[in-house]
Amino acid sequence: MRGIVGFYITYLLCLILGIACVVLVVHWNFMYRDGFAWDGSSKNFNWHPVLMVTGMLVLYGNAAVVYRIPLTWGHNKLPWKLLHAGLLLLSLIFSVIGLCAVFNFHNVHHTANLYSLHSWVGICTAALFTAQWVMGFTSFLLPCTPMAVRAFVKPTHVWMGAMILVLSIVSCISGINEKLFFVLKETTNGTKPYSALPPEAVAANSLGVIIVAFGLVVLKILSNQMWQRPEPGDDEGVYRPLAYDGS
Amino acid sequence: MRGIVGFYITYLLCLILGIACVVLVVHWNFMYRDGFAWDGSSKNFNWHPVLMVTGMLVLYGNAAVVYRIPLTWGHNKLPWKLLHAGLLLLSLIFSVIGLCAVFNFHNVHHTANLYSLHSWVGICTAALFTAQWVMGFTSFLLPCTPMAVRAFVKPTHVWMGAMILVLSIVSCISGINEKLFFVLKETTNGTKPYSALPPEAVAANSLGVIIVAFGLVVLKILSNQMWQRPEPGDDEGVYRPLAYDGS
Repeated sequence: MRGIVGFYITYLLCLILGIACVVLVVHWNFMYRDGFAWDGSSKNFNWHPVLMVTGMLVLYGNAAVVYRIPLTWGHNKLPWKLLHAGLLLLSLIFSVIGLCAVFNFHNVHHTANLYSLHSWVGICTAALFTAQWVMGFTSFLLPCTPMAVRAFVKPTHVWMGAMILVLSIVSCISGINEKLFFVLKETTNGTKPYSALPPEAVAANSLGVIIVAFGLVVLKILSNQMWQRPEPGDDEGVYRPLAYDGS
Repeated sequence: MRGIVGFYITYLLCLILGIACVVLVVHWNFMYRDGFAWDGSSKNFNWHPVLMVTGMLVLYGNAAVVYRIPLTWGHNKLPWKLLHAGLLLLSLIFSVIGLCAVFNFHNVHHTANLYSLHSWVGICTAALFTAQWVMGFTSFLLPCTPMAVRAFVKPTHVWMGAMILVLSIVSCISGINEKLFFVLKETTNGTKPYSALPPEAVAANSLGVIIVAFGLVVLKILSNQMWQRPEPGDDEGVYRPLAYDGS
Protein backbone atom coordinates (compact mmCIF):
# COMPACT_ATOMS: atom_id res chain seq x y z
CA MET A 1 0.00 0.00 0.00
CA ARG A 2 2.86 2.32 0.94
CA GLY A 3 4.42 1.49 -2.46
CA ILE A 4 1.22 2.42 -4.32
CA VAL A 5 0.86 5.76 -2.48
CA GLY A 6 4.53 6.49 -3.15
CA PHE A 7 4.06 5.69 -6.82
CA TYR A 8 1.02 7.93 -7.27
CA ILE A 9 2.69 10.86 -5.50
CA THR A 10 5.71 10.48 -7.82
CA TYR A 11 3.45 10.00 -10.86
CA LEU A 12 1.46 13.14 -9.97
CA LEU A 13 4.74 15.04 -9.77
CA CYS A 14 5.68 13.61 -13.19
CA LEU A 15 2.35 14.82 -14.68
CA ILE A 16 2.64 18.29 -13.11
CA LEU A 17 6.26 18.73 -14.25
CA GLY A 18 5.36 17.47 -17.76
CA ILE A 19 2.51 19.99 -18.06
CA ALA A 20 4.80 22.73 -16.68
CA CYS A 21 7.40 21.89 -19.38
CA VAL A 22 4.83 22.21 -22.19
CA VAL A 23 3.29 25.40 -20.77
CA LEU A 24 6.71 27.03 -20.23
CA VAL A 25 8.14 26.15 -23.65
CA VAL A 26 5.00 27.50 -25.38
CA HIS A 27 5.04 30.60 -23.11
CA TRP A 28 8.72 31.26 -23.93
CA ASN A 29 8.25 31.03 -27.69
CA PHE A 30 4.89 32.80 -27.74
CA MET A 31 5.69 35.65 -25.36
CA TYR A 32 9.37 36.31 -26.08
CA ARG A 33 10.01 34.85 -29.57
CA ASP A 34 6.97 36.19 -31.51
CA GLY A 35 4.97 32.97 -31.72
CA PHE A 36 4.60 30.47 -34.53
CA ALA A 37 4.41 30.19 -38.32
CA TRP A 38 5.60 27.82 -41.09
CA ASP A 39 7.31 30.29 -43.42
CA GLY A 40 11.04 29.71 -42.89
CA SER A 41 11.25 32.68 -40.50
CA SER A 42 12.34 32.57 -36.85
CA LYS A 43 8.65 31.92 -36.07
CA ASN A 44 9.10 28.68 -38.03
CA PHE A 45 12.11 27.79 -35.87
CA ASN A 46 9.99 28.29 -32.72
CA TRP A 47 8.14 25.05 -33.45
CA HIS A 48 11.46 23.23 -32.89
CA PRO A 49 11.81 23.66 -29.10
CA VAL A 50 8.04 23.34 -28.55
CA LEU A 51 7.72 20.06 -30.51
CA MET A 52 10.94 18.51 -29.24
CA VAL A 53 10.15 19.26 -25.58
CA THR A 54 6.51 18.18 -25.97
CA GLY A 55 7.28 15.14 -28.15
CA MET A 56 10.71 13.75 -27.40
CA LEU A 57 10.57 14.57 -23.70
CA VAL A 58 7.08 14.93 -22.17
CA LEU A 59 5.05 12.51 -24.35
CA TYR A 60 8.03 10.13 -24.46
CA GLY A 61 8.45 10.18 -20.67
CA ASN A 62 4.74 9.63 -20.07
CA ALA A 63 4.67 6.76 -22.59
CA ALA A 64 7.65 5.15 -20.84
CA VAL A 65 5.90 4.96 -17.45
CA VAL A 66 2.50 3.66 -18.68
CA TYR A 67 3.23 0.08 -17.52
CA ARG A 68 4.19 1.30 -14.05
CA ILE A 69 0.65 2.55 -13.24
CA PRO A 70 -0.74 -0.08 -10.80
CA LEU A 71 -4.31 0.69 -11.95
CA THR A 72 -3.47 -0.99 -15.29
CA TRP A 73 -2.10 -4.23 -13.80
CA GLY A 74 -5.41 -6.03 -13.30
CA HIS A 75 -6.23 -5.87 -17.00
CA ASN A 76 -5.14 -7.39 -20.30
CA LYS A 77 -1.79 -5.88 -21.32
CA LEU A 78 -2.66 -5.29 -25.00
CA PRO A 79 -4.56 -1.97 -24.63
CA TRP A 80 -1.67 -0.58 -22.56
CA LYS A 81 0.83 -1.80 -25.17
CA LEU A 82 -1.21 0.05 -27.79
CA LEU A 83 -1.29 3.17 -25.59
CA HIS A 84 2.50 2.89 -25.01
CA ALA A 85 3.20 2.45 -28.75
CA GLY A 86 0.63 5.09 -29.75
CA LEU A 87 1.98 7.77 -27.40
CA LEU A 88 5.51 7.00 -28.62
CA LEU A 89 4.40 7.20 -32.27
CA LEU A 90 2.81 10.61 -31.53
CA SER A 91 6.03 11.61 -29.77
CA LEU A 92 8.03 10.48 -32.83
CA ILE A 93 5.76 12.44 -35.22
CA PHE A 94 6.12 15.57 -33.05
CA SER A 95 9.91 15.09 -33.08
CA VAL A 96 10.08 14.66 -36.87
CA ILE A 97 7.99 17.83 -37.43
CA GLY A 98 10.19 19.59 -34.84
CA LEU A 99 13.29 18.58 -36.82
CA CYS A 100 11.64 19.69 -40.10
CA ALA A 101 11.04 23.11 -38.48
CA VAL A 102 14.75 23.69 -37.79
CA PHE A 103 15.90 22.27 -41.17
CA ASN A 104 13.39 24.51 -42.96
CA PHE A 105 14.55 27.58 -41.02
CA HIS A 106 18.23 26.79 -41.72
CA ASN A 107 17.66 26.05 -45.42
CA VAL A 108 15.72 29.30 -46.00
CA HIS A 109 18.51 31.27 -44.29
CA HIS A 110 21.29 29.25 -46.01
CA THR A 111 22.60 28.20 -42.60
CA ALA A 112 24.50 24.92 -42.26
CA ASN A 113 22.64 22.01 -40.71
CA LEU A 114 23.96 19.59 -38.09
CA TYR A 115 27.20 21.25 -37.10
CA SER A 116 26.76 21.99 -33.38
CA LEU A 117 27.26 19.40 -30.64
CA HIS A 118 23.61 19.95 -29.70
CA SER A 119 22.56 18.93 -33.22
CA TRP A 120 24.89 15.90 -33.24
CA VAL A 121 23.48 14.60 -29.93
CA GLY A 122 19.93 15.57 -30.95
CA ILE A 123 19.99 13.80 -34.32
CA CYS A 124 21.52 10.66 -32.75
CA THR A 125 18.72 10.75 -30.15
CA ALA A 126 16.05 10.99 -32.86
CA ALA A 127 17.69 8.16 -34.88
CA LEU A 128 17.93 5.90 -31.82
CA PHE A 129 14.32 6.72 -30.92
CA THR A 130 13.14 5.77 -34.43
CA ALA A 131 15.13 2.50 -34.33
CA GLN A 132 13.75 1.78 -30.85
CA TRP A 133 10.15 2.35 -31.99
CA VAL A 134 10.55 0.06 -35.02
CA MET A 135 12.27 -2.62 -32.89
CA GLY A 136 9.57 -2.27 -30.23
CA PHE A 137 6.77 -2.56 -32.80
CA THR A 138 8.23 -5.66 -34.50
CA SER A 139 9.18 -7.33 -31.22
CA PHE A 140 6.14 -6.64 -29.03
CA LEU A 141 3.17 -5.75 -31.26
CA LEU A 142 3.48 -8.10 -34.25
CA PRO A 143 1.57 -11.23 -33.16
CA CYS A 144 3.94 -13.51 -35.09
CA THR A 145 6.99 -12.60 -32.96
CA PRO A 146 7.89 -15.58 -30.72
CA MET A 147 7.78 -15.06 -26.95
CA ALA A 148 11.44 -16.10 -26.74
CA VAL A 149 12.40 -13.16 -28.99
CA ARG A 150 10.30 -10.78 -26.85
CA ALA A 151 11.97 -12.02 -23.66
CA PHE A 152 15.41 -11.63 -25.28
CA VAL A 153 14.73 -8.10 -26.60
CA LYS A 154 12.90 -6.72 -23.54
CA PRO A 155 15.86 -5.85 -21.23
CA THR A 156 17.60 -3.98 -24.09
CA HIS A 157 14.30 -2.26 -25.03
CA VAL A 158 13.75 -1.08 -21.43
CA TRP A 159 17.36 0.09 -21.00
CA MET A 160 17.48 1.83 -24.38
CA GLY A 161 14.20 3.55 -23.53
CA ALA A 162 15.71 5.10 -20.40
CA MET A 163 18.95 6.04 -22.20
CA ILE A 164 17.05 7.77 -25.03
CA LEU A 165 15.33 9.84 -22.33
CA VAL A 166 18.76 10.80 -20.92
CA LEU A 167 19.85 11.83 -24.44
CA SER A 168 16.63 13.84 -24.83
CA ILE A 169 17.39 15.76 -21.64
CA VAL A 170 20.96 16.43 -22.87
CA SER A 171 19.60 17.63 -26.24
CA CYS A 172 16.94 19.89 -24.69
CA ILE A 173 19.31 21.58 -22.21
CA SER A 174 22.11 22.15 -24.75
CA GLY A 175 19.53 23.45 -27.26
CA ILE A 176 17.89 25.93 -24.89
CA ASN A 177 21.33 27.15 -23.75
CA GLU A 178 22.44 27.58 -27.40
CA LYS A 179 19.26 29.42 -28.40
CA LEU A 180 19.56 31.89 -25.50
CA PHE A 181 23.16 32.74 -26.43
CA PHE A 182 22.02 33.25 -30.04
CA VAL A 183 19.15 35.62 -29.33
CA LEU A 184 19.93 37.41 -26.08
CA LYS A 185 22.55 39.96 -27.13
CA GLU A 186 22.98 43.54 -25.95
CA THR A 187 21.60 45.98 -28.53
CA THR A 188 21.27 49.75 -28.79
CA ASN A 189 17.46 49.51 -28.47
CA GLY A 190 17.81 48.36 -24.87
CA THR A 191 17.74 44.56 -25.28
CA LYS A 192 19.62 43.01 -22.39
CA PRO A 193 22.22 40.27 -22.95
CA TYR A 194 21.85 36.75 -21.55
CA SER A 195 24.43 37.60 -18.85
CA ALA A 196 22.07 40.28 -17.42
CA LEU A 197 19.38 37.60 -16.95
CA PRO A 198 16.43 39.42 -18.58
CA PRO A 199 12.94 37.91 -17.98
CA GLU A 200 13.23 35.69 -21.08
CA ALA A 201 16.48 34.16 -19.76
CA VAL A 202 14.87 33.45 -16.37
CA ALA A 203 11.83 31.86 -18.08
CA ALA A 204 13.89 29.66 -20.41
CA ASN A 205 16.46 28.71 -17.73
CA SER A 206 13.53 27.75 -15.46
CA LEU A 207 12.14 25.64 -18.31
CA GLY A 208 15.54 23.88 -18.44
CA VAL A 209 15.50 23.19 -14.69
CA ILE A 210 11.94 21.80 -14.91
CA ILE A 211 12.93 19.62 -17.91
CA VAL A 212 15.77 18.13 -15.81
CA ALA A 213 13.40 17.60 -12.85
CA PHE A 214 10.81 15.91 -15.11
CA GLY A 215 13.49 13.63 -16.62
CA LEU A 216 14.81 12.62 -13.19
CA VAL A 217 11.30 11.84 -11.91
CA VAL A 218 10.61 9.63 -14.97
CA LEU A 219 13.97 7.86 -14.49
CA LYS A 220 13.07 7.39 -10.79
CA ILE A 221 9.77 5.75 -11.74
CA LEU A 222 11.50 3.52 -14.31
CA SER A 223 14.29 2.46 -11.95
CA ASN A 224 12.16 1.56 -8.91
CA GLN A 225 11.74 -2.23 -9.04
CA MET A 226 8.81 -2.06 -6.62
CA TRP A 227 6.86 -0.16 -9.26
CA GLN A 228 7.43 -2.58 -12.14
CA ARG A 229 4.44 -4.35 -13.69
CA PRO A 230 4.45 -7.84 -12.15
CA GLU A 231 6.27 -10.52 -14.17
CA PRO A 232 5.93 -13.19 -15.54
CA GLY A 233 2.10 -12.86 -15.42
CA ASP A 234 2.13 -9.98 -17.96
CA ASP A 235 0.12 -11.45 -20.77
CA GLU A 236 -2.34 -13.23 -18.54
CA GLY A 237 -3.02 -9.91 -16.81
CA VAL A 238 -2.43 -11.43 -13.38
CA TYR A 239 -2.63 -8.77 -10.69
CA ARG A 240 -0.18 -8.96 -7.80
CA PRO A 241 -0.19 -6.37 -5.02
CA LEU A 242 2.66 -3.88 -5.33
CA ALA A 243 3.97 -4.58 -1.85
CA TYR A 244 4.78 -8.18 -2.75
CA ASP A 245 6.65 -7.26 -5.89
CA GLY A 246 9.71 -5.73 -4.23
CA SER A 247 12.89 -7.66 -5.02
CA MET B 1 30.96 -16.96 -16.45
CA ARG B 2 29.21 -15.35 -19.43
CA GLY B 3 28.18 -12.52 -17.09
CA ILE B 4 31.77 -11.98 -15.93
CA VAL B 5 33.12 -11.87 -19.51
CA GLY B 6 30.31 -9.45 -20.47
CA PHE B 7 31.18 -7.26 -17.48
CA TYR B 8 34.89 -7.09 -18.26
CA ILE B 9 34.26 -6.26 -21.94
CA THR B 10 31.94 -3.43 -20.86
CA TYR B 11 34.37 -2.30 -18.15
CA LEU B 12 37.25 -2.24 -20.66
CA LEU B 13 35.08 -0.06 -22.91
CA CYS B 14 34.40 2.21 -19.93
CA LEU B 15 38.14 2.57 -19.22
CA ILE B 16 39.01 3.23 -22.90
CA LEU B 17 36.24 5.82 -23.29
CA GLY B 18 37.24 7.48 -20.00
CA ILE B 19 40.88 7.77 -21.11
CA ALA B 20 39.71 9.05 -24.53
CA CYS B 21 37.63 11.77 -22.78
CA VAL B 22 40.63 12.99 -20.76
CA VAL B 23 43.03 12.87 -23.74
CA LEU B 24 40.57 14.68 -26.03
CA VAL B 25 39.64 17.44 -23.55
CA VAL B 26 43.36 18.12 -22.86
CA HIS B 27 44.15 17.96 -26.62
CA TRP B 28 41.33 20.43 -27.40
CA ASN B 29 42.44 22.99 -24.82
CA PHE B 30 46.17 22.52 -25.41
CA MET B 31 46.15 22.45 -29.22
CA TYR B 32 43.31 24.86 -30.06
CA ARG B 33 42.89 27.04 -26.93
CA ASP B 34 46.54 27.93 -26.12
CA GLY B 35 46.99 25.66 -23.12
CA PHE B 36 46.87 26.39 -19.42
CA ALA B 37 47.73 29.06 -16.84
CA TRP B 38 46.27 30.46 -13.58
CA ASP B 39 46.30 34.17 -14.38
CA GLY B 40 42.64 35.05 -15.06
CA SER B 41 43.19 34.79 -18.83
CA SER B 42 41.41 32.43 -21.22
CA LYS B 43 44.23 29.97 -20.42
CA ASN B 44 42.90 30.03 -16.86
CA PHE B 45 39.39 29.20 -18.14
CA ASN B 46 40.82 26.18 -20.01
CA TRP B 47 41.26 24.34 -16.70
CA HIS B 48 37.45 24.39 -16.37
CA PRO B 49 36.54 21.87 -19.11
CA VAL B 50 39.60 19.72 -18.38
CA LEU B 51 38.95 19.45 -14.63
CA MET B 52 35.17 19.05 -14.91
CA VAL B 53 35.40 16.30 -17.56
CA THR B 54 38.26 14.55 -15.73
CA GLY B 55 36.77 15.02 -12.24
CA MET B 56 33.00 15.18 -12.37
CA LEU B 57 32.67 12.72 -15.23
CA VAL B 58 35.60 10.28 -15.71
CA LEU B 59 36.85 9.89 -12.11
CA TYR B 60 33.24 10.02 -10.86
CA GLY B 61 32.08 7.34 -13.32
CA ASN B 62 35.01 5.07 -12.48
CA ALA B 63 34.41 5.52 -8.75
CA ALA B 64 30.73 4.63 -9.22
CA VAL B 65 31.48 1.23 -10.79
CA VAL B 66 34.20 0.10 -8.33
CA TYR B 67 31.84 -2.26 -6.48
CA ARG B 68 30.76 -3.89 -9.74
CA ILE B 69 34.24 -5.37 -10.43
CA PRO B 70 33.86 -9.11 -9.64
CA LEU B 71 37.58 -9.34 -8.74
CA THR B 72 36.82 -7.29 -5.60
CA TRP B 73 33.97 -9.47 -4.36
CA GLY B 74 36.03 -12.12 -2.59
CA HIS B 75 37.58 -9.58 -0.25
CA ASN B 76 36.68 -7.36 2.70
CA LYS B 77 34.57 -4.42 1.46
CA LEU B 78 36.38 -1.70 3.47
CA PRO B 79 39.37 -1.14 1.10
CA TRP B 80 36.94 -0.80 -1.83
CA LYS B 81 34.79 1.61 0.17
CA LEU B 82 37.91 3.68 0.81
CA LEU B 83 38.83 3.53 -2.90
CA HIS B 84 35.23 4.53 -3.86
CA ALA B 85 35.21 7.45 -1.37
CA GLY B 86 38.82 8.45 -2.22
CA LEU B 87 38.22 8.57 -5.99
CA LEU B 88 35.05 10.58 -5.39
CA LEU B 89 36.89 12.99 -3.07
CA LEU B 90 39.54 13.47 -5.78
CA SER B 91 36.73 13.96 -8.30
CA LEU B 92 35.15 16.56 -5.98
CA ILE B 93 38.48 18.41 -5.51
CA PHE B 94 39.01 18.48 -9.32
CA SER B 95 35.46 19.84 -9.72
CA VAL B 96 35.94 22.58 -7.11
CA ILE B 97 39.22 23.70 -8.74
CA GLY B 98 37.47 23.53 -12.14
CA LEU B 99 34.73 25.83 -10.79
CA CYS B 100 37.33 28.19 -9.29
CA ALA B 101 38.94 28.41 -12.76
CA VAL B 102 35.77 29.71 -14.40
CA PHE B 103 34.87 32.06 -11.50
CA ASN B 104 38.42 33.49 -11.56
CA PHE B 105 38.26 34.03 -15.34
CA HIS B 106 34.82 35.71 -15.09
CA ASN B 107 35.81 37.90 -12.14
CA VAL B 108 39.01 39.16 -13.83
CA HIS B 109 36.98 39.98 -16.98
CA HIS B 110 34.06 41.46 -14.98
CA THR B 111 31.74 38.90 -16.54
CA ALA B 112 28.62 37.80 -14.66
CA ASN B 113 28.72 34.38 -13.01
CA LEU B 114 25.97 31.74 -13.06
CA TYR B 115 23.58 33.17 -15.62
CA SER B 116 23.50 30.50 -18.36
CA LEU B 117 21.40 27.35 -18.18
CA HIS B 118 24.67 25.38 -18.41
CA SER B 119 25.90 27.12 -15.25
CA TRP B 120 22.58 26.60 -13.43
CA VAL B 121 22.58 22.86 -14.16
CA GLY B 122 26.34 22.62 -13.53
CA ILE B 123 26.27 24.34 -10.12
CA CYS B 124 23.28 22.21 -9.04
CA THR B 125 25.24 19.10 -10.09
CA ALA B 126 28.27 20.18 -8.05
CA ALA B 127 26.08 21.00 -5.02
CA LEU B 128 24.27 17.64 -5.22
CA PHE B 129 27.60 15.86 -5.64
CA THR B 130 28.99 17.57 -2.50
CA ALA B 131 25.85 16.68 -0.51
CA GLN B 132 26.04 13.10 -1.82
CA TRP B 133 29.70 12.76 -0.78
CA VAL B 134 29.03 14.09 2.74
CA MET B 135 25.94 11.85 3.10
CA GLY B 136 27.91 8.87 1.78
CA PHE B 137 30.81 9.52 4.17
CA THR B 138 28.60 9.87 7.26
CA SER B 139 26.37 6.94 6.32
CA PHE B 140 28.88 4.37 5.08
CA LEU B 141 32.35 5.26 6.40
CA LEU B 142 31.74 6.49 9.96
CA PRO B 143 31.90 3.32 12.08
CA CYS B 144 29.26 4.62 14.51
CA THR B 145 26.48 4.74 11.86
CA PRO B 146 23.97 1.92 12.58
CA MET B 147 23.50 -0.75 9.88
CA ALA B 148 19.77 0.12 9.78
CA VAL B 149 20.63 3.68 8.73
CA ARG B 150 23.01 2.37 6.04
CA ALA B 151 20.35 0.01 4.67
CA PHE B 152 17.82 2.87 4.63
CA VAL B 153 20.16 5.35 2.91
CA LYS B 154 21.71 2.94 0.36
CA PRO B 155 18.97 2.87 -2.34
CA THR B 156 18.81 6.68 -2.37
CA HIS B 157 22.64 6.90 -2.41
CA VAL B 158 22.86 4.51 -5.39
CA TRP B 159 20.07 6.26 -7.32
CA MET B 160 21.40 9.75 -6.59
CA GLY B 161 24.84 8.60 -7.72
CA ALA B 162 23.49 7.63 -11.15
CA MET B 163 21.40 10.82 -11.45
CA ILE B 164 24.40 13.04 -10.62
CA LEU B 165 26.21 11.30 -13.49
CA VAL B 166 23.27 12.14 -15.80
CA LEU B 167 23.49 15.79 -14.66
CA SER B 168 27.27 15.74 -15.26
CA ILE B 169 26.72 14.59 -18.85
CA VAL B 170 24.10 17.34 -19.36
CA SER B 171 26.52 19.93 -17.91
CA CYS B 172 29.49 18.78 -20.03
CA ILE B 173 27.57 18.72 -23.33
CA SER B 174 25.86 22.09 -22.80
CA GLY B 175 29.20 23.58 -21.70
CA ILE B 176 31.21 22.34 -24.71
CA ASN B 177 28.42 23.50 -27.04
CA GLU B 178 28.39 26.96 -25.39
CA LYS B 179 32.19 27.31 -25.49
CA LEU B 180 32.35 26.45 -29.21
CA PHE B 181 29.71 29.09 -30.06
CA PHE B 182 31.70 31.62 -27.97
CA VAL B 183 35.09 31.06 -29.60
CA LEU B 184 34.44 29.81 -33.15
CA LYS B 185 33.41 32.96 -34.98
CA GLU B 186 34.28 34.05 -38.51
CA THR B 187 37.07 36.64 -38.49
CA THR B 188 38.98 38.58 -41.13
CA ASN B 189 42.17 36.63 -40.34
CA GLY B 190 40.65 33.46 -41.74
CA THR B 191 39.19 31.84 -38.60
CA LYS B 192 36.26 29.67 -39.59
CA PRO B 193 32.96 29.82 -37.70
CA TYR B 194 31.51 26.82 -35.82
CA SER B 195 29.01 26.27 -38.66
CA ALA B 196 31.91 25.53 -41.09
CA LEU B 197 33.07 22.73 -38.76
CA PRO B 198 36.77 23.64 -38.50
CA PRO B 199 39.11 20.98 -36.99
CA GLU B 200 38.57 22.36 -33.46
CA ALA B 201 34.79 21.93 -33.81
CA VAL B 202 35.19 18.34 -35.00
CA ALA B 203 37.58 17.57 -32.11
CA ALA B 204 35.34 19.12 -29.43
CA ASN B 205 32.12 17.68 -30.91
CA SER B 206 33.81 14.24 -30.94
CA LEU B 207 34.77 14.79 -27.30
CA GLY B 208 31.06 15.43 -26.61
CA VAL B 209 30.01 12.22 -28.36
CA ILE B 210 32.63 10.21 -26.41
CA ILE B 211 31.46 11.82 -23.13
CA VAL B 212 27.90 10.67 -23.89
CA ALA B 213 29.14 7.17 -24.80
CA PHE B 214 31.21 6.97 -21.58
CA GLY B 215 28.21 8.08 -19.50
CA LEU B 216 25.89 5.53 -21.10
CA VAL B 217 28.40 2.70 -20.56
CA VAL B 218 28.73 3.63 -16.86
CA LEU B 219 24.92 3.78 -16.52
CA LYS B 220 24.74 0.36 -18.24
CA ILE B 221 27.18 -1.11 -15.71
CA LEU B 222 25.26 0.46 -12.80
CA SER B 223 21.86 -0.72 -14.04
CA ASN B 224 22.72 -4.36 -14.77
CA GLN B 225 21.54 -6.32 -11.75
CA MET B 226 23.69 -9.31 -12.75
CA TRP B 227 26.78 -7.16 -12.14
CA GLN B 228 25.86 -5.94 -8.66
CA ARG B 229 28.08 -6.88 -5.73
CA PRO B 230 26.31 -9.78 -4.02
CA GLU B 231 24.00 -8.84 -1.14
CA PRO B 232 23.48 -9.24 1.81
CA GLY B 233 26.97 -10.75 2.28
CA ASP B 234 28.68 -7.37 1.67
CA ASP B 235 30.43 -6.81 4.92
CA GLU B 236 31.41 -10.42 5.37
CA GLY B 237 33.06 -10.32 1.94
CA VAL B 238 31.17 -13.45 0.83
CA TYR B 239 31.91 -14.25 -2.81
CA ARG B 240 29.05 -15.49 -4.98
CA PRO B 241 29.55 -16.26 -8.68
CA LEU B 242 28.11 -13.56 -10.92
CA ALA B 243 25.95 -15.96 -12.90
CA TYR B 244 23.95 -16.86 -9.79
CA ASP B 245 23.31 -13.26 -8.86
CA GLY B 246 20.84 -12.42 -11.58
CA SER B 247 17.41 -11.53 -10.24
